[in-house]
Amino acid sequence: MESNMIFVPIALAILGLLFMFIKMAWVKKQAPGSEKMQEISKSIKEGALAFLAAEYRLLVIFVVIASTALFGISLLVPTTSWMIVPAFVFGAIFSALAGNIGMRVATEANARTAEAAKTSLPQALKVSFGGGTVMGLGVAGLAVLGLSLFFMFFTSQFMGADGSFYDNMTIVLEALAGFSLGAESIALFARVGGGIYTKAADVGADLVGKVEAGIPEDDPRNPATIADNVGDNVGDVAGMGADLFGSYVATVLAAMVLGNYLIRDMSQTTQFTDAFGNMGPILLPIVIAGVGILASIIGTFLVGVKNNDAKEAQVQKALDLGNWVAIILTMIASYFLIQYMLPETLTMNFFGEGAKEVSSMNVFYSTLIGLAVGALISVVTAYYTSLGKKPVMDIVQNSSTGAATNIIAGLAVGMKSTFLSVILFAAAIYGSYELAGFYGVALAASAMMATTAMQLAIDAFGPIADNAGGVAEMSELEDHVRERTDILDSVGNTTAAVGKGFAIASAALTALALFAAYVTFTGIDGINIFKADVLAMLFVGGMIPVVFSALAMKSVGKAAMEMVQEVRRQFREIPGIMEGTGTPEYAKCVDISTKAALKEMILPGLITIITPIIIGLLFGAEPLGGYMAGVCVSGVMWAIFQNNAGGAWDNAKKSFEAGVEIDGEMTYKGSDAHKAAVTGDTVGDPFKDTSGPSMNILIKLTCLVGLVIAPILGGHTEESAVVNQEIEIIQNSTNETAEKKIEVTMKMDGELATATVTVETSENGKVKREVKELEGSEAEIKAEIKQIEASLK
Amino acid sequence: MESNMIFVPIALAILGLLFMFIKMAWVKKQAPGSEKMQEISKSIKEGALAFLAAEYRLLVIFVVIASTALFGISLLVPTTSWMIVPAFVFGAIFSALAGNIGMRVATEANARTAEAAKTSLPQALKVSFGGGTVMGLGVAGLAVLGLSLFFMFFTSQFMGADGSFYDNMTIVLEALAGFSLGAESIALFARVGGGIYTKAADVGADLVGKVEAGIPEDDPRNPATIADNVGDNVGDVAGMGADLFGSYVATVLAAMVLGNYLIRDMSQTTQFTDAFGNMGPILLPIVIAGVGILASIIGTFLVGVKNNDAKEAQVQKALDLGNWVAIILTMIASYFLIQYMLPETLTMNFFGEGAKEVSSMNVFYSTLIGLAVGALISVVTAYYTSLGKKPVMDIVQNSSTGAATNIIAGLAVGMKSTFLSVILFAAAIYGSYELAGFYGVALAASAMMATTAMQLAIDAFGPIADNAGGVAEMSELEDHVRERTDILDSVGNTTAAVGKGFAIASAALTALALFAAYVTFTGIDGINIFKADVLAMLFVGGMIPVVFSALAMKSVGKAAMEMVQEVRRQFREIPGIMEGTGTPEYAKCVDISTKAALKEMILPGLITIITPIIIGLLFGAEPLGGYMAGVCVSGVMWAIFQNNAGGAWDNAKKSFEAGVEIDGEMTYKGSDAHKAAVTGDTVGDPFKDTSGPSMNILIKLTCLVGLVIAPILGGHTEESAVVNQEIEIIQNSTNETAEKKIEVTMKMDGELATATVTVETSENGKVKREVKELEGSEAEIKAEIKQIEASLK
Repeated sequence: MESNMIFVPIALAILGLLFMFIKMAWVKKQAPGSEKMQEISKSIKEGALAFLAAEYRLLVIFVVIASTALFGISLLVPTTSWMIVPAFVFGAIFSALAGNIGMRVATEANARTAEAAKTSLPQALKVSFGGGTVMGLGVAGLAVLGLSLFFMFFTSQFMGADGSFYDNMTIVLEALAGFSLGAESIALFARVGGGIYTKAADVGADLVGKVEAGIPEDDPRNPATIADNVGDNVGDVAGMGADLFGSYVATVLAAMVLGNYLIRDMSQTTQFTDAFGNMGPILLPIVIAGVGILASIIGTFLVGVKNNDAKEAQVQKALDLGNWVAIILTMIASYFLIQYMLPETLTMNFFGEGAKEVSSMNVFYSTLIGLAVGALISVVTAYYTSLGKKPVMDIVQNSSTGAATNIIAGLAVGMKSTFLSVILFAAAIYGSYELAGFYGVALAASAMMATTAMQLAIDAFGPIADNAGGVAEMSELEDHVRERTDILDSVGNTTAAVGKGFAIASAALTALALFAAYVTFTGIDGINIFKADVLAMLFVGGMIPVVFSALAMKSVGKAAMEMVQEVRRQFREIPGIMEGTGTPEYAKCVDISTKAALKEMILPGLITIITPIIIGLLFGAEPLGGYMAGVCVSGVMWAIFQNNAGGAWDNAKKSFEAGVEIDGEMTYKGSDAHKAAVTGDTVGDPFKDTSGPSMNILIKLTCLVGLVIAPILGGHTEESAVVNQEIEIIQNSTNETAEKKIEVTMKMDGELATATVTVETSENGKVKREVKELEGSEAEIKAEIKQIEASLK
Repeated sequence: MESNMIFVPIALAILGLLFMFIKMAWVKKQAPGSEKMQEISKSIKEGALAFLAAEYRLLVIFVVIASTALFGISLLVPTTSWMIVPAFVFGAIFSALAGNIGMRVATEANARTAEAAKTSLPQALKVSFGGGTVMGLGVAGLAVLGLSLFFMFFTSQFMGADGSFYDNMTIVLEALAGFSLGAESIALFARVGGGIYTKAADVGADLVGKVEAGIPEDDPRNPATIADNVGDNVGDVAGMGADLFGSYVATVLAAMVLGNYLIRDMSQTTQFTDAFGNMGPILLPIVIAGVGILASIIGTFLVGVKNNDAKEAQVQKALDLGNWVAIILTMIASYFLIQYMLPETLTMNFFGEGAKEVSSMNVFYSTLIGLAVGALISVVTAYYTSLGKKPVMDIVQNSSTGAATNIIAGLAVGMKSTFLSVILFAAAIYGSYELAGFYGVALAASAMMATTAMQLAIDAFGPIADNAGGVAEMSELEDHVRERTDILDSVGNTTAAVGKGFAIASAALTALALFAAYVTFTGIDGINIFKADVLAMLFVGGMIPVVFSALAMKSVGKAAMEMVQEVRRQFREIPGIMEGTGTPEYAKCVDISTKAALKEMILPGLITIITPIIIGLLFGAEPLGGYMAGVCVSGVMWAIFQNNAGGAWDNAKKSFEAGVEIDGEMTYKGSDAHKAAVTGDTVGDPFKDTSGPSMNILIKLTCLVGLVIAPILGGHTEESAVVNQEIEIIQNSTNETAEKKIEVTMKMDGELATATVTVETSENGKVKREVKELEGSEAEIKAEIKQIEASLK
């Protein structure tokens, strides 16, 4: 059983996918509502699929170019197999497939949720959450399945070859990085493109519809209303899904890479062996991911309300219950899995501190840190963006003196919210590293991501409910239907903000794990920002998220302007449109959003992918590491700032719907203060739905590109390459004096150089005497010492 | 002569101060205008001095506490002398004195400029620029004088003592760091407090005066109008002056510290000697600073227009001419000084690459890079913030669709502007380091700062002209007077934006030089962000500027609200105020701004100073280095973003005064688009005048605090200390095989350890054979190797 452990995640992934199909069938079986409702739902679905189809066309071009480049790399670099190419292609396909399934079901579920809301709130929740569950399980199931199958295949291909376990496994994981890169590339298109799409449609619909024509949200007379609803699916469902699919895969991959290093550290004296094909530490993260799927399935059963008069609080509670049960089950399972799959004591090499022995329980504590930080960052996000809390109330108060003070207050809320989030994040890095090195950091991220299926179910349920409200409005259903969908929608707004907090936390930890994997992959012994080139690239990296955000925001502005012109044209030219006798050309608006989104995402996409390649090739591995760190630090800051400012502005505006007290007076919708709040919300829209969430992709993709090109850089920066390395253990018994002789032959500037080191170790493992014979210049000697130290580890 | 080189900067500083007194006397001799004008000018002066007095009271408390802490450090750390305390106190006093002189003359010059504008524009320029010159020379003269005198004194105290030149010089420079810390502390108060003051008064005056009461800017009926004019002096004159005083001193200091390392690198085989008391590389930066004063004096003579009908362009050209002449003279002087004061060939230790020989001309090329980057960043800043240029026009166009699109456009402009600025900055780091190591980087910064006197003269002339306009308005002078001062004011707006670009570029390079000095001071061999604690602190550092900005912005909001209440109260309660028969209580408004500014700056100030101390003590030197880098990277980004967004919004609003074409229609003041632009400008005000410029202080002070506490951390992180070090050169002649034996005795965890290394070198300087005998654990061995390598350098 143990040696076939890889089948456990495969089985669990298949279980997840089976459960997904059952849920999907169930959703489809629900009553689809009146003909009008079906028609609207169909328009939304067609619009969404049209966007996906257009996106896929662009993607095919991208995948072909990227595959060619990857194939080129695989020819150049001995440690990279050409099999990275199919892995890349399948990563892209699986991610696209997951998004496609999720969006299809989401667009099916909207009208069905509205129809169910006719009967009762519990039923409406069941349908909308059912739709979300399909999305969540689709993403998690396909991710784990894809990773496991490719891992199994690659190990069968490469592990038998000559060379050490470590070297062969590096080839396996390098090829597997292709799968992650493929997934993340789709995420770039889905998240950035989707973000531009959804806000262009939203702003366009609002500016002309609500403001100029004075018709309500989701009014069928508004030509952009379908595009607006498509946008919710494209951005919030498919975009978020692809984002988390990417994080999920990348986290597990990074943890596997670091597991391989753990095995290397533990093979210092004798080759590491265990019952799991000697790869327990590598398999652990993927098994935890598989178990997380099961835990999520169990969690989904607990989401439901009984009372038809339930309000937001009860619905929220039901979602929280499911979520927490999934988390706690994962936690318990992780405990046993870690005990089962890892040796009791691990030998880890801590940077600059040498090898240390840590208990495998430390790894478990790291996962606890991951789970705790994920939960706490969500709490912080909720605090800064929730109705009635101090930050939002502060923006509300500042709306009374006009748009300018509202904007300043909103910006300040977003900026302040970085404080606790970053402190938590820094504590997570520090704590999990202290416990179990970078393997601990990666497993903290893995644990956090393990319940992705549940998280996504909760995230995707929001836009479905939002769409259901739209369908209800457009097909003029009775008021109580809209009231029920509004309750779900309102809960959905909170879960959306919290979900964004989760997404950024996971992206940040993922990036960090990838960063650690990158450093070890390249073979550099750290990233020293005291070197001028590294420091310069740290600054350049810090700038990229800022410029990326500006581009994304401007793209929304440009696309929205096109939409405004089109909507104005239709109002002007289509007779009877305002009276409801003429039918608006919805498809044209959908088309505009689609084209604009795809066009506008090319530049930021290219910047993300090409900049690290250029820096890596021009300056080498260590400066690229500085660049990656700069992108991460700045990207995390700007993501939190933009997401939370946007969320807070949104809810500050919403506060006026129920009425708020400003200076002792109740103030409502339509007041000057409300108008100021609407301005703030309009500024916040691209923040929270376009540029903010794009940061996740930017930081992950930057680190992934770095990881994939790492092997080229290794050769590029180091002018010396080890030609031959002999380690002769002259005497080695734990209780006696041991002697170890290392002979390293290296090529330096084309010439061969030899270094011999004899190390005598006393009983307690302390080195007693070390004799080195080195030849070459001082700089070369240093390089040699580095090499020798690395081999001593 | 050569051995008394230090008298050159002293003489030049005194020359600068003499010239300053002459200019001051000349300004005071000018006709002060009518009684009413004098009265207004007096009110502004009194308000400004009242703020300074209140600020000084707070400062005294701060200086006492900080002095006690520094004295404590000096007792704990052997390399820190108690003389750091008087240096700190004098640094604070000199900076305060420079600000005081500058502000006094600025408040004298305003009415005199208005009076001069009655006669002609050239005369008005002469008076206002004369006032600016006093400020510029006061800052530069006092800075160079203070640094030189303390350096002379400290060398006389410490250079005779036992120990190596390097160790003694380290004590000198460590004590001198106190002077810099004192100066920068004042800058914190002046820049942050001044920034809050000026915007609270401005926003308060505008909101009630212009918007609610409908009276024009600078109307004497507005109770906040004096406070508003005081604010210009407090923020733009005293704040900017203290900021540049701090950068100037810190840059020179950092260059001197790195000069000391250069000497150490060059003393590898034989003790470095030269004609300048063996300290040419240390003296060079301060001599260049002195020469810069002379160049600036010459430059000021060239600023002037002849034609009374001159417009903005001619005035700008006159200022540019003076500036460029000063820069070019400094450049030429630097060439000869470098040839004169540095050995032809320098041996520099490049991190990770070992020692290299570089020509002293490389240092000159580094200064060229500094001058070029300073100029280019100013050009970039001007592009993004100038009237009529694409970025500002883009904001103007986006104003037609309301405040929200105006805000988005402005934010995007600020964000995009980071691109070129950061690329330039990264190129400066990379280029000057490649040429001449960190000494090159520091000299690039020094060269850029050398013409600070001229820069400040240009910067300070703007607010004087602005105030002159206010005086003209309040004392109801004829229209052509206001027209003339408006021309000067308008040029002043551009120079203000450019000056902010210069200030941030100089702050960034200064911080970098301090950062390099920090790393070498602590004795750590780099800052490796692959260590989890360092990486965690990099994130924390990245967050600080964001939170600091939020606090500064919110402070302005709070203080402005108090001001609004007070102005409203006066309008309500003072009879005849609107008719001009009742006199407003100006002093009350001044008082509110003063108190609010000082109260609100305490928290951000404490965060700036205390956070690095906590991190240093808790985590050690390397994580603190990560924190410093995080603050710098994020701080530079946010400074550029906020300054440029604010400047662009300001000029987008101003564009409507002359009228702009939007969608083919001319649009003017009072239109909806203009109102949207006013909203943008209000958001931009705290950006560009409070939080943005505060970033400069934040990043410099963070690095300075790190530098001052560096010696404590050195002991804190390293558990081993070298007790005894013997270098025995067995044989050493350049053409033959040399052998060098090093014996190092160190204390490790309380126990003595010995390491012996014998190095045999062949003819070509290559190490042939190295035998090491080391004892201890692997981690200890590594520490030993580090020590040995350091002594090999």
